[in-house]
Amino acid sequence: MREFDLLEHIYASNARLDAGTVLIPPGDDMGMVRADRREILAAVDQAIDGRHFRLATTPIELVGRKAVTRSLSDIAAMAARPLATLVAATLPPDFGEGRANALFDAMRGAAAAYRCPLIGGDLAFHSSPAHPLVCSVTVLATPGPTPPARRDGAKAGDAVFVTGRLGGSLEPSGLGRHLTFEPRIDLALEIANRLGPALHSMIDLSDGLGRDVSHVGEFSGVQIVLEAASIPCNEGCDWRRALSDGEDYELCFTTSDAGNVPAEIGGVPITRVGEVMAAAARPRVGSSHVLVREGGCVLAADEMGWQHGGSSSREAAS
Amino acid sequence: MREFDLLEHIYASNARLDAGTVLIPPGDDMGMVRADRREILAAVDQAIDGRHFRLATTPIELVGRKAVTRSLSDIAAMAARPLATLVAATLPPDFGEGRANALFDAMRGAAAAYRCPLIGGDLAFHSSPAHPLVCSVTVLATPGPTPPARRDGAKAGDAVFVTGRLGGSLEPSGLGRHLTFEPRIDLALEIANRLGPALHSMIDLSDGLGRDVSHVGEFSGVQIVLEAASIPCNEGCDWRRALSDGEDYELCFTTSDAGNVPAEIGGVPITRVGEVMAAAARPRVGSSHVLVREGGCVLAADEMGWQHGGSSSREAAS
Repeated sequence: MREFDLLEHIYASNARLDAGTVLIPPGDDMGMVRADRREILAAVDQAIDGRHFRLATTPIELVGRKAVTRSLSDIAAMAARPLATLVAATLPPDFGEGRANALFDAMRGAAAAYRCPLIGGDLAFHSSPAHPLVCSVTVLATPGPTPPARRDGAKAGDAVFVTGRLGGSLEPSGLGRHLTFEPRIDLALEIANRLGPALHSMIDLSDGLGRDVSHVGEFSGVQIVLEAASIPCNEGCDWRRALSDGEDYELCFTTSDAGNVPAEIGGVPITRVGEVMAAAARPRVGSSHVLVREGGCVLAADEMGWQHGGSSSREAAS
Repeated sequence: MREFDLLEHIYASNARLDAGTVLIPPGDDMGMVRADRREILAAVDQAIDGRHFRLATTPIELVGRKAVTRSLSDIAAMAARPLATLVAATLPPDFGEGRANALFDAMRGAAAAYRCPLIGGDLAFHSSPAHPLVCSVTVLATPGPTPPARRDGAKAGDAVFVTGRLGGSLEPSGLGRHLTFEPRIDLALEIANRLGPALHSMIDLSDGLGRDVSHVGEFSGVQIVLEAASIPCNEGCDWRRALSDGEDYELCFTTSDAGNVPAEIGGVPITRVGEVMAAAARPRVGSSHVLVREGGCVLAADEMGWQHGGSSSREAAS
């Protein structure tokens, strides 16, 4: 069973939603709904022992932080403003009160640090100590300076950019940037401020640049061509790992106004890595939404990334 | 480890929240936050195999329905209007695509049936088939005809009412009303319409009348005295089971305008079951927030209910 087969099934019902109320249906980084005249964005994400962290070897403060920052990264991906956080956790019955308090303190602290205060939560206990810690974090947001940056807005002719550097988030020994990354909320707001309506699409990089950008290509009905040599890699990583390692939580965006994208914002490099082409112009690799040019070759990159629950290239904790 | 020890720890930090933005902090049925000039309520609840249902013997449609209606009941408890739903599920890796689709269809269907459309979700997979299905459901709402009915608003002199009948939600087979209850959203809105500001407090009954009402007593700084003979019981249940079985998902509210409470709304009986007394008037049973009068006796009822993860009177699936 693949996550995306299930998601396809879910998206198939989007057409039945009331478009006057549900402004962004399931499928983007956040959904959006209209409450009277105000738009509210919301997203939920999970962090699970054995999948997204290894409880036995990870400080509980980093587990709580990651559970929240994963969801906060979705706010960045929409160039939206943080509003509120809700956390739910299912704990093994022998988890221990001190550790549970530390977990919730870390979640509340991470939420507060990004101006997204904790307003609710739920605690439950598994029936067996053998069952894993599951954290589920919902974040609410309001639109930023532009309409939310969706994954279906990329247009042929756009330039493609990524923030930061990619690859190797799991290093070393499972304790790496996947636990300590900064959700790019302020950076996304600054990009939206500078580009305005020329910011056509944005996504955060959780599953690997290849797989994530394939969603932009698919939702936007375009093909995205990346230049391998342009992809900013973390030390020790080549472009293949940068494309496929995942859990970078950097942003990828497309814009028709490449000239207004600065080389860095607040010390974070912003790098042009490719271009958006019309879907009809697909050159060699049939149905692929993402191609990577390397030397004289063009490779399909849709599958270069982290398929949760399927045949993964790697997983954080397996 | 008891759930409420943890919750106390969480509530202790509420004072640090910005009261201009966070209008209802963690601790009530829903939190509330201000988004510009609009108030948004939000709550999250979990449903876990082995705790809230038994996957092996429960139709998957009822599992999905309950996961959502549990959260929708929190909207009713605030007399608020449904806005949107987000669902997250962690599935065992061998869950099967057909069953996963049926689960999400049921969750989406229940959300839509109560005018609370699904706008987002997350899917993840456990690392082992031995780990249980965990569903986490967040609901958003806007205020109803009155300010949200909180659990801290009960006043001495209020009359105490419950909707429907209590007890016996879990049949010996594991099936029963805990899977099929109707969240009392419309009924709560009608009560709020009729009582206006005289609706002082409201809570939904998930853990048992005794335990749930003790929260109203504690948060409101009052003592609540129930009349055992008045408690409306489901067939085959006495008042003790009505107080302690839990998972009725009926409402309990207090009001200074008992004369305006109808005997039923839409076929659901509304029954006066007690009164609110000043905390200083505690008669015999020291620190208890809920007393039950039965014959010539007065009993403390705070502990009559379902303590999740602690020494429970009973659990849905254990």
